[in-house]
Amino acid sequence: MDTIYSDGYPIFFENAVDELTAFIKNGKYSRVFILVDENTSVHCLPIVQDKLGNADNYDIIEINAGEECKNIDFCIGVWKMLIDFGADRKALMVNLGGGVITDMGGFAASTYKRGIDFVQVPTTLLSQVDASVGGKTGIDVDSVKNIIGTFTQPKAVFIDYDFLQTLPPRQILSGLAEMLKHGLILDASYWNQLKQADLHNPPAELIHASVILKNKVVMEDPTEQNIRKSLNFGHTIGHAVETWSLTHDGDPLTHGEAIAIGMLCEAYLAYKRTGLSKNELDEIQFVIGGLYQHYSLNPAMYEDVYNIMLKDKKNIDGKINCTLLNRIGEFNIDNFFEKEELFEALDYYAGL
Amino acid sequence: MDTIYSDGYPIFFENAVDELTAFIKNGKYSRVFILVDENTSVHCLPIVQDKLGNADNYDIIEINAGEECKNIDFCIGVWKMLIDFGADRKALMVNLGGGVITDMGGFAASTYKRGIDFVQVPTTLLSQVDASVGGKTGIDVDSVKNIIGTFTQPKAVFIDYDFLQTLPPRQILSGLAEMLKHGLILDASYWNQLKQADLHNPPAELIHASVILKNKVVMEDPTEQNIRKSLNFGHTIGHAVETWSLTHDGDPLTHGEAIAIGMLCEAYLAYKRTGLSKNELDEIQFVIGGLYQHYSLNPAMYEDVYNIMLKDKKNIDGKINCTLLNRIGEFNIDNFFEKEELFEALDYYAGL
Repeated sequence: MDTIYSDGYPIFFENAVDELTAFIKNGKYSRVFILVDENTSVHCLPIVQDKLGNADNYDIIEINAGEECKNIDFCIGVWKMLIDFGADRKALMVNLGGGVITDMGGFAASTYKRGIDFVQVPTTLLSQVDASVGGKTGIDVDSVKNIIGTFTQPKAVFIDYDFLQTLPPRQILSGLAEMLKHGLILDASYWNQLKQADLHNPPAELIHASVILKNKVVMEDPTEQNIRKSLNFGHTIGHAVETWSLTHDGDPLTHGEAIAIGMLCEAYLAYKRTGLSKNELDEIQFVIGGLYQHYSLNPAMYEDVYNIMLKDKKNIDGKINCTLLNRIGEFNIDNFFEKEELFEALDYYAGL
Repeated sequence: MDTIYSDGYPIFFENAVDELTAFIKNGKYSRVFILVDENTSVHCLPIVQDKLGNADNYDIIEINAGEECKNIDFCIGVWKMLIDFGADRKALMVNLGGGVITDMGGFAASTYKRGIDFVQVPTTLLSQVDASVGGKTGIDVDSVKNIIGTFTQPKAVFIDYDFLQTLPPRQILSGLAEMLKHGLILDASYWNQLKQADLHNPPAELIHASVILKNKVVMEDPTEQNIRKSLNFGHTIGHAVETWSLTHDGDPLTHGEAIAIGMLCEAYLAYKRTGLSKNELDEIQFVIGGLYQHYSLNPAMYEDVYNIMLKDKKNIDGKINCTLLNRIGEFNIDNFFEKEELFEALDYYAGL
């Protein structure tokens, strides 16, 4: 699989850990900081350390695992570690983990001393197909997702397929939602390929193809003025349901599970507003519904979910902004909705 | 006085408050947030509000005054206010105040929803001649100054000379240090003009000239790769003394008072290392010593001050980096020093 070139940096797929160690060794950095969480510290770090050899020239910064750690308090912890370690402007940060690590590590690096170099080593399917491309860094404040962040490109991304072998099935499904989204918004033939694959164990080539699709979009529109908004399909409602679940459920939805719900709701809105056919809506429901367990949406929570949507970054003048589909493989941006219509979409999902 | 053009944005000097209100009214922003502190809320905000008229379309965010408020906790407070007010990506932030407001407000805006527009309305002499140009935003963490920040340009800067009339004399002297620095590093004739002026009440034209000097430097080297480092003259030792004073003195040094100390120490290092003549060292000492009260530096604090310098952003591989002078009007960057030499410079100042 070819190396993909994004906005000034390479995304390696073959021998990714070798490429990473070569990058570190050839990089003339004053010091290297590897950010991990409890999981990647056990499952991924030893593989990297094995290749890196000499342990003199890097430090490990470890944080707790979980979406609830992607907040400003943990970020301050990372900054303080960098200060305490005496990290200077020629330091490199290696973010080894899922989206929490890559998003937060990217934000911490992009603001420490007004910016030090960082590379991304995404270890979950979600972060490989989503967080690794596009230069978005971010943290949550007050449970508002990614409300604080920067647009900053990493120096390189290293995607190692083998890291996925240690993931639980729910984590694979979480990343899969973004792959399905890439097909739905951009490429009907990719969507058809996905339908025919073993999606509980997605092949490396389909991951590579997903990153190519996303990369095309963000290269054309790095700061989300127009076509990059296509990537928001499923995310307006999905993010809100995810945030609700995170603060209410004992075992909350993963990002992808929430986006799967959001895609179904927004496919319904597309059927109502932008011409998605009933056939295609049913097809989307059949594929997604077959992969993800149904989540119980209760009308009593709609108002809460709507209030979360009101804080969405994409809104303009208090109106809720959704990216929809004209048909499978073709997106339609900047569709604004009132509360009642959004509730109808939630009802559609609840009734499935 | 002509409008100065910096990296994509204008710096207005004439009728600055009128220009600001025109900018806001013509700006098609979804909402305007004016960040003030307790002082500018009383002395400056009413002047702006008077011209703005209709109070429907903006909100005020007020924070405490003082350098000790330029930290991540207050910044989180600003972010939360923006979230609570429902600020969207088309919002504008107006930073009305001294360097704490412009630096922290700039950082908060540059990271809120990955960046909203902001304008700077510096109301102290220091922020007018220093913080208004160059696109540096920043906050302190753990008393390490400006350790977290971004390089982000404002949409415009509005410099109103009248705001200076409400400042106490120590605040004028604080800004003056940066003006003196601009002469020392860049322009001997400007230094000579300063020597002949009433520096307790610096004329508008000399402020304007100071901004022109700084703007030239940052335009040529926006990310501080080379000549922008000239602006660090006096700041390696000055920042450390300032931080020490902030955490130890009941009535701490202002930024400019600390930079005045730093410039004298580093002029001494320049005399020892980069060829500044004894005559020029004495001249600098005569001018600066005549303006600023002598501060009592005690050898017992040297080790502390040195430890603060070790966290300086400019260091490489743990060596302390100072910008020096070859002569008045000509800087010399990237001079690295050991502890003993820095102590000797502190001794020089202590013995004056």
